[in-house]
Amino acid sequence: MVRLPPEEGALKDLRPTSEERAHICDIGQILLDEIAESGKAEGMIVGSIARHTWLRGDKDLDVFMLFNPGLSREELEDQGLALARKVAAKFTDTFHEKYAEHPYINAIIEGVDIDLVPCYKVESAAHIQSAVDRTPFHTRYITDKINGLTDDVLLLKRFAKTGGIYGSDQMTEGFSGYLCEILILYHGGFRPLLEAASGWRPHQFIDPEEHGAKKFDEPLIVIDPVDPKRNVAAAVSLDKFAGFVELARGYLAEPSESFFRLREPESITRKELAALLDQRGTSLYAVTFETPPYIEEVVVPQLKRSVLALSEHLRRNGFVLHHAHYAMKLDRCMLLFELLVADLPKIRLHAGPPVWNRQNADKFREKYISAGSAGPFLTEGRYEVEVPREFTSARDMFASQELLNVSLGKHVRQSLEKGWKVAEGPDCWQEQFSSFIATFFSRCSPLTRIRRRS
Amino acid sequence: MVRLPPEEGALKDLRPTSEERAHICDIGQILLDEIAESGKAEGMIVGSIARHTWLRGDKDLDVFMLFNPGLSREELEDQGLALARKVAAKFTDTFHEKYAEHPYINAIIEGVDIDLVPCYKVESAAHIQSAVDRTPFHTRYITDKINGLTDDVLLLKRFAKTGGIYGSDQMTEGFSGYLCEILILYHGGFRPLLEAASGWRPHQFIDPEEHGAKKFDEPLIVIDPVDPKRNVAAAVSLDKFAGFVELARGYLAEPSESFFRLREPESITRKELAALLDQRGTSLYAVTFETPPYIEEVVVPQLKRSVLALSEHLRRNGFVLHHAHYAMKLDRCMLLFELLVADLPKIRLHAGPPVWNRQNADKFREKYISAGSAGPFLTEGRYEVEVPREFTSARDMFASQELLNVSLGKHVRQSLEKGWKVAEGPDCWQEQFSSFIATFFSRCSPLTRIRRRS
Repeated sequence: MVRLPPEEGALKDLRPTSEERAHICDIGQILLDEIAESGKAEGMIVGSIARHTWLRGDKDLDVFMLFNPGLSREELEDQGLALARKVAAKFTDTFHEKYAEHPYINAIIEGVDIDLVPCYKVESAAHIQSAVDRTPFHTRYITDKINGLTDDVLLLKRFAKTGGIYGSDQMTEGFSGYLCEILILYHGGFRPLLEAASGWRPHQFIDPEEHGAKKFDEPLIVIDPVDPKRNVAAAVSLDKFAGFVELARGYLAEPSESFFRLREPESITRKELAALLDQRGTSLYAVTFETPPYIEEVVVPQLKRSVLALSEHLRRNGFVLHHAHYAMKLDRCMLLFELLVADLPKIRLHAGPPVWNRQNADKFREKYISAGSAGPFLTEGRYEVEVPREFTSARDMFASQELLNVSLGKHVRQSLEKGWKVAEGPDCWQEQFSSFIATFFSRCSPLTRIRRRS
Repeated sequence: MVRLPPEEGALKDLRPTSEERAHICDIGQILLDEIAESGKAEGMIVGSIARHTWLRGDKDLDVFMLFNPGLSREELEDQGLALARKVAAKFTDTFHEKYAEHPYINAIIEGVDIDLVPCYKVESAAHIQSAVDRTPFHTRYITDKINGLTDDVLLLKRFAKTGGIYGSDQMTEGFSGYLCEILILYHGGFRPLLEAASGWRPHQFIDPEEHGAKKFDEPLIVIDPVDPKRNVAAAVSLDKFAGFVELARGYLAEPSESFFRLREPESITRKELAALLDQRGTSLYAVTFETPPYIEEVVVPQLKRSVLALSEHLRRNGFVLHHAHYAMKLDRCMLLFELLVADLPKIRLHAGPPVWNRQNADKFREKYISAGSAGPFLTEGRYEVEVPREFTSARDMFASQELLNVSLGKHVRQSLEKGWKVAEGPDCWQEQFSSFIATFFSRCSPLTRIRRRS
């Protein structure tokens, strides 16, 4: 395949070195041998290492341990963790239990970050009992076909990463490694994929094995070649999908190495933030609280929901929001709101029933007349009164216990119940959130970001 | 008919005195004689005097001059005005030409305000050539049937007047005298009408002659007994309709003379306005300009439209409106706006095309990137940029020439083109608008107003 110079240039940095390759494969082999020796399970290298689609510098090795599907779920977990611990302990003291859908062991061995994951050895993808059982099938599918296209996968992964859309985690809502591989296989290479993606529209549908057996409503629908009822691209948000489309167009129009060049994360100082707010004339509020003791996949969707609910709470109270976002750090979470209107007069309108609804209309009139409210007025045949506004400042609203009444998500609520802090203006700045705050303000589209710095 | 004490009490003040009656009838007769003597037309007393439904103190006498329908429109106007002038000149020097749909002569004779109106003498209401030709038919219809119900008409007229909903002019948007008469006839009296009205809902349909021949969409539809294609209640706005419904319910629940007692118009001093605004914490803006040289029926709808258009203009520019209204005085008009948010930061969001609309998306990106705007961002798959806000204060917006670009109505625009003044806060106060400004803030529903002062 003829490559453009930016791609050739990028690939020099993307392909793993032969030393890296040898080192990781050696470790993989040793672990497989240990598993085989135990006689309890069959070992299998999965993930990008197995598929030869890992990027230079990646040190993540996924080793699956395939157990007899006759075991109960409990037996699998007990025996699986016991074996994983035994294998890990042979090589290192630094290992501990982690939990995704099921528990597994994570260990650092000779600088490589290794997951030892127990699963069932099922005969076909149709018989899988949980998501981990599917992984070996993915690996077999890709390994069988990826020959000659591994460079294209490396390019795509880095291209997506540079654009900020690589990763199917809740924070990124972008493209997983497996999705990248499927797309490269389906379109036959990096550039054919970009040419296709230039014309993508929401609900783009791709079904490599032509066996899709379920309706999906996501922006990008890529039917899993090993599971007709699964959308490999389910995590991709509409904006990350749009970002990929514009990146594809932008690259094809003006190919450049900047599409493959990672950059340092942005950051902002407290002083810069103060100057920025002064210049913008907006009001910034940060709600911070203890990070709930759960994994990102559980907490981040709740942060997202909380920001939406609080945005609606602001709107209902008459404040005007410009932009809001959320961040999760190890110990603290932050919900950040930039407002155009943060202070309001003491009065507000409160809508009542139409006059024709006699019972309610009479009740409403009597209630507000005896409360001494201004009105009721008649507006389009409905009653309306002027009542005192509950919150005349957004700060008061954020500080009020009413915050707990909006739809926050269980663990975020539990954390807020222990208390939260409200900061305003430059006081929102905190060292650990300085990168988050910087991107909060510079949130331009992926292509714009790349063009601006090249 | 048994009357409640408040009605008996009210009627004592509502029925014209016998002196009044004699005086007005005498003048009427003299005018009719003069017209008959001319041999040009036939005279006819119309309006509430002819129908015995005028209120004590009313001094309005309508005398129609019915001409041969063989005359052209021009001949009618020429001969009609000539005759009217001749008749008027016999009794007074104070008369002048006025213009509704057609020209007529208005004269003050012995303290009575007299309209001398030329019209065609048509055989049936089906042959009328303009609205004035219809009036004699109205008078005949009511006069034939109103016997025994004139007191009820007086009560209803005053009841509506006290509630602020008497008058079919553009400012009031309420009940005309003829509508009051028809409603009393149809329901057989004041109280039966109120009992029916308590249960009215929008699009209430009344067709006394059961001959309606056209669809209407107004809140109250009362088919004219003399014209099956006319809604007598076309002027009644939804809120005046609702006001009548709540007045009816309120009176039946607690009948009281306060429903018939007129009060002095409200007023506010400049000092009171300053205190009120301070207490409310809102921002008040008045746009004043020369009253266009046209009658109220022409200008007021344009003022109403202008307020709606400027309210939308405010909203588009991000300001938050609480209430707006308009007033027309002899020499100046005022558009008054009370805002919750009158100042905004320098930035605003500007929505662009969806990314899938490639041509527009590319154009939009290039335009705003080269303009140095923040963004474009991606929001739900669409581009969005941050741009400088055109008006950061409502005052600037009202003062800008852009005001002329909103949908104002022809004559209001022409007047504004000669210049307008913007006032803010207590400076909005002007002596001639002090009553308008008072009701701007006290705009409660008719029943509430009556209950509050009784």
